[in-house]
Amino acid sequence: MTGTLDRLDRLAPLPDQLPEVALAAHMPAGFRAGATRAGIKASGALDLGVLATTGEPASAAATFTTNRVQAAPVRLSRANLEASGGRVAAVISTSGCANAATGAEGDRDQRDLGDALAAAAGVAVEQTLALSTGLIGSRLPVVSIRAALGRLVPDGLATTDAALAALAEQLRTTDSRAKAATVRVSLASVDGATSPVTVTGVAKGVGMIHPRMATMLALVLTDAVASPAMLRAVLGPVVERTWNQLTVDGDTSTNDTVFLLASGAAGGPSVEQGSVAFAPFAAAVEAVARSLARQQAADGEGATTLLTCQVSGAPDDGHARAVAREVVGSSLVKAAIHGHDPNWGRIAAAAGNALLDGAPVPVEVDRLAIAIAGVPVFDGEPIPFDRHAVSRAMAAPEVLLRVDLGLGDGRGEAFGCDLTEQYVVENSAYST
Amino acid sequence: MTGTLDRLDRLAPLPDQLPEVALAAHMPAGFRAGATRAGIKASGALDLGVLATTGEPASAAATFTTNRVQAAPVRLSRANLEASGGRVAAVISTSGCANAATGAEGDRDQRDLGDALAAAAGVAVEQTLALSTGLIGSRLPVVSIRAALGRLVPDGLATTDAALAALAEQLRTTDSRAKAATVRVSLASVDGATSPVTVTGVAKGVGMIHPRMATMLALVLTDAVASPAMLRAVLGPVVERTWNQLTVDGDTSTNDTVFLLASGAAGGPSVEQGSVAFAPFAAAVEAVARSLARQQAADGEGATTLLTCQVSGAPDDGHARAVAREVVGSSLVKAAIHGHDPNWGRIAAAAGNALLDGAPVPVEVDRLAIAIAGVPVFDGEPIPFDRHAVSRAMAAPEVLLRVDLGLGDGRGEAFGCDLTEQYVVENSAYST
Repeated sequence: MTGTLDRLDRLAPLPDQLPEVALAAHMPAGFRAGATRAGIKASGALDLGVLATTGEPASAAATFTTNRVQAAPVRLSRANLEASGGRVAAVISTSGCANAATGAEGDRDQRDLGDALAAAAGVAVEQTLALSTGLIGSRLPVVSIRAALGRLVPDGLATTDAALAALAEQLRTTDSRAKAATVRVSLASVDGATSPVTVTGVAKGVGMIHPRMATMLALVLTDAVASPAMLRAVLGPVVERTWNQLTVDGDTSTNDTVFLLASGAAGGPSVEQGSVAFAPFAAAVEAVARSLARQQAADGEGATTLLTCQVSGAPDDGHARAVAREVVGSSLVKAAIHGHDPNWGRIAAAAGNALLDGAPVPVEVDRLAIAIAGVPVFDGEPIPFDRHAVSRAMAAPEVLLRVDLGLGDGRGEAFGCDLTEQYVVENSAYST
Repeated sequence: MTGTLDRLDRLAPLPDQLPEVALAAHMPAGFRAGATRAGIKASGALDLGVLATTGEPASAAATFTTNRVQAAPVRLSRANLEASGGRVAAVISTSGCANAATGAEGDRDQRDLGDALAAAAGVAVEQTLALSTGLIGSRLPVVSIRAALGRLVPDGLATTDAALAALAEQLRTTDSRAKAATVRVSLASVDGATSPVTVTGVAKGVGMIHPRMATMLALVLTDAVASPAMLRAVLGPVVERTWNQLTVDGDTSTNDTVFLLASGAAGGPSVEQGSVAFAPFAAAVEAVARSLARQQAADGEGATTLLTCQVSGAPDDGHARAVAREVVGSSLVKAAIHGHDPNWGRIAAAAGNALLDGAPVPVEVDRLAIAIAGVPVFDGEPIPFDRHAVSRAMAAPEVLLRVDLGLGDGRGEAFGCDLTEQYVVENSAYST
């Protein structure tokens, strides 16, 4: 048997392969944004945001919740993207109300807002998208939102970083902080000329309203030149490796949405598959997505610890990601992390439960190796280790679990958080 | 659209189809049992149990954990059942130590105990089975267990109900109470003669030791006459509808085991597929299994409320069971139950997340109906209801959620419990 440290070191830390991220929103060329108060949130906080292009419509790609119960903004955005062929000129974002399970009236409300946005921004209605988050089953206050929209568009929109930061702020429900990430990267043409582009993202994670539903929304913007088809080719695998590897409580909401919009305003080479620009652009998008997913995990309901599980030695990357998801999603592992308890038996048991497309992931306990916070604790059999030292290391803001299956070259990671009494309090300690 | 009450009433309460259950252990003819202290549990509680037949070996069927990491007792029991062709003369049960992830030494320990049991009981070693539960990664204290086994077998075994109750007590780790259920049923022959038989079960649910791993074990005994093949035919579908529909925290342990043993000592007709005895016998086994699963759910770690979800209107029963499992397994639903919050949006969202063999279960929100504690709250769109009255009804020891998908005739149910601060405390609030 190879030494555990050697085996676990086979998993080069994944972030090293990605460009560095700045934890701030920087508005890419070609976009403008703004946010205001429309009376949805009882708190009076920002609850209406708009993003629009400054010139031509942007290229767009999107991923939506896999929940079979899909909110009205998700249904409308899907239909519009289809109708427009992936061209987007404006996005409306409302927070404090999910507009989900609201029947035909909910769909009509959402269309009314799309019509109002298109009229105010002077764009085609099928070139609009919608994001919303909040309570399931309640109706949007359409009249007050239309009034606020009239004040915001177009005069309240700006191309500044502050305007994009306001949009990030507006996305929050009870996220404890706004979430943003930016990468700047130079894309090379075949002739060797390079053009700097910006990829920036804002997101909301698992906040709550009263009563509430955790919801994940993200908006990634770039001034790079890319077709809708190319953005889809980039976004799919990125979401697989980042947001689809994020779990706070295992519940997928009715509203989860990720939009990737490219204005093309930076000029330079078009991002094409096989071109020299493709890989650096995809890596920039992935770095932004990964950072936002980690910010969301760290800010999970009641969470005190960001939990990352990196898996190596799987038959392929998909199996590795499935094991990583199962480990960070296990209630028993999450509770042990909260208790700073190096209880590797729960990690081994969670790994053994992993499914991929409904089929068990091959896990052989004799080949399994586990390290907690850098300390090997299992290698086919228990390894003696200093439990108190590992427990102290688990008091850090982030705990890294590494699992090697010893079966192949597949690798992957997943992001979660500890399970705390506060999670239960936030989700139960009130009665309607 | 059919009225919600009508649609939800299509789901006849499933228990009505099953015989009544007594919540006690009654020793069927042909078995003897006993329990003692072997020094595994630091508390000094009963931690060694033995079940043996009084005459010929019993017919046996078993289901085991689907976790890829399987404990030594699971591996040994599988091998012995295969070698013996489903004939079992004795079972050893240890509690306080899972003997999982203990490598080759753990397998040798378990074989040593099987050898000692076979010698003491005077039976063939391949006709023994093993159950164990407790900490993953620690070794069984074989020397002290062998010594205790020598005192227990054969002189400490008895054919009394009290002896079986002691075995139920021994199975506990930190279950708050022992779990038992019995059905007595008369099996008819083709000639019209009837023979009374007993089906009884004892089980442990989600207790804990320090450090700990939730584990589910159950032993169902009967004096009916049935072949191993017939017991397997009965047990498979029963486990699908009962124990596989039980969730406390979504973690499947390395040790989960169900044994169904038939001594044949009651005489009477042999249970054969297509015989008049088959359906009543299968119903008796299912009633015992369902009762034990519900007792386990009600006693889930930190639980205050038994949560049952009954689903109707699915394309088939498998899809209905998948939706029911997803609802009772949702952290957000479980927390809402704890808070007596009739938050039907979380139920709708959980239903929309259900997967069967990795594929989404069809759920159409326009056809979905939901009732909480008997009160319809959603029927394609929100229904006005008295939130305070429903919240008060949710303070009961059991809360029933009913979901109709409006798509077919498939029905199913699942059992779980609320998510409480105490669950988190029990699973995290200590450090090693």
